[in-house]
Amino acid sequence: MEVKAYGAHASDKPLESMDIQRRAPGPDDVQIDIVYCGVCHSDLHQVRSEWGGTHYPCVPGHEIVGHVSAVGDKVSAFRVGDTVGVGCMVDSCQHCHSCDEGLEQYCENGFTPTYNGATEDHPGHTLGGYSQKIVVDQNFVLKIRHPEDQLAAVAPLLCAGITTYSPLRHWNVGPGKKVGIVGIGGLGHMGVKLAHAMGAHTVAFTTSESKREAARELGADEVIVSRNEDEMAAHAGTFDFILNTVAASHNLDAYTNLLKRDGTLTMVGVPEDPHPSPAIGNLIFKRRNIAGSLIGGIAETQEMLDFCAEHKIVADIELIPAKAINEAYERMLKSDVKYRFVIDNATLAE
Amino acid sequence: MEVKAYGAHASDKPLESMDIQRRAPGPDDVQIDIVYCGVCHSDLHQVRSEWGGTHYPCVPGHEIVGHVSAVGDKVSAFRVGDTVGVGCMVDSCQHCHSCDEGLEQYCENGFTPTYNGATEDHPGHTLGGYSQKIVVDQNFVLKIRHPEDQLAAVAPLLCAGITTYSPLRHWNVGPGKKVGIVGIGGLGHMGVKLAHAMGAHTVAFTTSESKREAARELGADEVIVSRNEDEMAAHAGTFDFILNTVAASHNLDAYTNLLKRDGTLTMVGVPEDPHPSPAIGNLIFKRRNIAGSLIGGIAETQEMLDFCAEHKIVADIELIPAKAINEAYERMLKSDVKYRFVIDNATLAE
Repeated sequence: MEVKAYGAHASDKPLESMDIQRRAPGPDDVQIDIVYCGVCHSDLHQVRSEWGGTHYPCVPGHEIVGHVSAVGDKVSAFRVGDTVGVGCMVDSCQHCHSCDEGLEQYCENGFTPTYNGATEDHPGHTLGGYSQKIVVDQNFVLKIRHPEDQLAAVAPLLCAGITTYSPLRHWNVGPGKKVGIVGIGGLGHMGVKLAHAMGAHTVAFTTSESKREAARELGADEVIVSRNEDEMAAHAGTFDFILNTVAASHNLDAYTNLLKRDGTLTMVGVPEDPHPSPAIGNLIFKRRNIAGSLIGGIAETQEMLDFCAEHKIVADIELIPAKAINEAYERMLKSDVKYRFVIDNATLAE
Repeated sequence: MEVKAYGAHASDKPLESMDIQRRAPGPDDVQIDIVYCGVCHSDLHQVRSEWGGTHYPCVPGHEIVGHVSAVGDKVSAFRVGDTVGVGCMVDSCQHCHSCDEGLEQYCENGFTPTYNGATEDHPGHTLGGYSQKIVVDQNFVLKIRHPEDQLAAVAPLLCAGITTYSPLRHWNVGPGKKVGIVGIGGLGHMGVKLAHAMGAHTVAFTTSESKREAARELGADEVIVSRNEDEMAAHAGTFDFILNTVAASHNLDAYTNLLKRDGTLTMVGVPEDPHPSPAIGNLIFKRRNIAGSLIGGIAETQEMLDFCAEHKIVADIELIPAKAINEAYERMLKSDVKYRFVIDNATLAE
């Protein structure tokens, strides 16, 4: 089946309209008519092959929401017309230790990413959500219980939402905990909303005085301008957990220093250039931790979507037509978006 | 009371014999006739003011064993003649959150180190175990249950022992766990013995082929020569926990890469020059942790001493007279010791 998509033919080419193939649904497959797709910074890295290894044509997009338009014989959990989502994974080995624990994102044999992953489908690598339709194994399809009119703003939950929800849950964020969210962008603005909804005393860190009010509106109980050393020092040794969403190289000691004994600083972004080497003394003298976290498992992604539906949480977005994607990338590079671009996939047909 | 000691009058001076004052025991004090004192690398750093802030005269030593020679009125747990030990701490605030939890090493108000800490005693800073006697608050005195003829080899347990025991316990090392110990020196050789006694599959990492057999004799189930990349690669993603005792700057990625999902690499040494910045991707893709750990609390130090007595664990030592200390420091810098120097404090009177 041929569908319209937006993608790039080479690392130095802009994204453009193209036709791609989708497989006919197999017995375990769910075919989805994509309504919206969020724009993640990873999309840009992949399209431009900034991590290396990008296969072309590259069709990015892993914040996918839409409606089921066909299901295979063995699919009973989804029906035509259901509102569903697909995130960063479309498959995994489904039999290793991590998959058995519902942690497919840490699949010992490597999960299949929604784009640029190995597949038997044409053209040999997976193609993402900047497209009209996608066909996905039922085990990697999520149910969406938000009101239909919020669907565009639900899309970013599939990556930005779960990437922040999973570590907040894993490190037991909740009432009585003081939690920091570093960086108020696509990921960080979700982190603030989620930590607040989990009942934690939520502190947003931003580099800019001008973002103080915006961070409060997202749900931050306090906002710290990280360039203000006195403001930072006043919070030394007081945080249970800090989620750091900033991928750009920066000084981590400023944050480990804010943790209580046994506190954890969790990183969710890989910097292009290494961070300055973190001070080991900062870790030793209060048994602090620096950790990493990768998206979340399928069961946890469903849990996150249900949590967000219950707490009326969606992303703050700017809806764009597909043809505006190259311009959106340029604005994303300047952090000129509050806080996530979402493509209106109906515009792919234009 | 005046006693003989060995210490330095300045950062660029060798250690020499000197007389120092000890306070008369107060109601809560235990006076100890020191029989042996272990030689820790920290002693050398402090004497030479390599961390800055050393007060002179500097009398180091925080691996102290001896016999009680007097007790204050309020002391009931110790009697004259008891065999006891003192480690890295001689006091703490004893009322903060960490002290209340028995984690005096993380005292929120700062514990009093056994040497170079603030005290009302002459000369205004604490003086350590390279001396004939020491007077210590009863809450910081440990009972030693090893046979008397092993006393010299017990001394290093008070720092090297607890520094490795505490993280091994905190990160739940035991049967069914695969545990690495990096660096087979004063700390590392204790780490191997303790992890083995805890029932873990214990793997020693050494830089040198020549230390392979020695590491096995300490109790390692396997030995990996860390310079051998193939040998390292064969163990990728298989460790539950790695305790890194090497303070010299080195590549941490080689070790984070060996951890399973959710595994932890714990550092117990502060490098003089920073380690190369650890790869955040190594942490993110398996939710791994890098942590630090500092000695152990008093209750846990007693637990460690009792565990070692029960499992017949002591350090491997080389006993030296006090006058050999400067030479011992030079050999320690070359790692030319298996695995800990211990001073025979009877030689202080010579």
